[in-house]
Amino acid sequence: MPQATGVKFQLHPTFLATSETVGDLRLCHVRIQADARWPWAVLIPRIAGAREFEDLSAADRAILMEEVVLAGAAVRAAGQALGQQVEKLNVGQLGNLTPQLHIHMVGRRIDDAAWPGPVWGVGVAEAYDPKTLSVAMAALREALRV
Amino acid sequence: MPQATGVKFQLHPTFLATSETVGDLRLCHVRIQADARWPWAVLIPRIAGAREFEDLSAADRAILMEEVVLAGAAVRAAGQALGQQVEKLNVGQLGNLTPQLHIHMVGRRIDDAAWPGPVWGVGVAEAYDPKTLSVAMAALREALRV
Repeated sequence: MPQATGVKFQLHPTFLATSETVGDLRLCHVRIQADARWPWAVLIPRIAGAREFEDLSAADRAILMEEVVLAGAAVRAAGQALGQQVEKLNVGQLGNLTPQLHIHMVGRRIDDAAWPGPVWGVGVAEAYDPKTLSVAMAALREALRV
Repeated sequence: MPQATGVKFQLHPTFLATSETVGDLRLCHVRIQADARWPWAVLIPRIAGAREFEDLSAADRAILMEEVVLAGAAVRAAGQALGQQVEKLNVGQLGNLTPQLHIHMVGRRIDDAAWPGPVWGVGVAEAYDPKTLSVAMAALREALRV
């Protein structure tokens, strides 16, 4: 069981190349995906060795669900700050490539680059310009209170 | 708030064309996706009007998270019954096309038809033959105790 290993949580290095730090909630480290096509947060429970929801305790899973809802509101707020009306949240826990439990929270619009399909693996990430990234980051941080 | 409307939950008709009834857990109606390429369950909280996690009460969200974990174990069991070793669970709440909250639980294998990408929107569903479907259904029902 991951909680019992005594191994300290370390962020998988893959996230460093694709996202930037937003802050830490009670359970999850939160990042913003470095892709200006969508307001997109990534939640990573700070539990060493976890790959699936079943690797968390039931108590941590309940916290995670509430952090998912909070992060959804934050993604909506980031979309609004960017002038993008989020019509639907997409929540995904896949982890086929990155072997560390993480949850994608993606704000979708009916005119976005992948609608109505999923965003994962679609096209190439568009880098944020620094000013736009700071607007999105500020909106996420305000909504998450981090 | 969906819980306050007094409107009775009704399954969105889209699910009838793409999946079959497995049974009901405390919160969710459970279906098997009619696609033999993956062991795949769909959880639909029986709450009228819900489209996002935020439309459920916190109490129902906690139940949902535990049903997600249970359904993940059931998908692994279905994979095993079908001779398919599930390497990773993929959990998705998208709902871009079907406007009723539902959670996909998909058992992934590194040799499957979409690995490592997501399954949604990939290729065309492969119909189960009746015997294989009954094997998968029985494994799901045993694991879910429905």
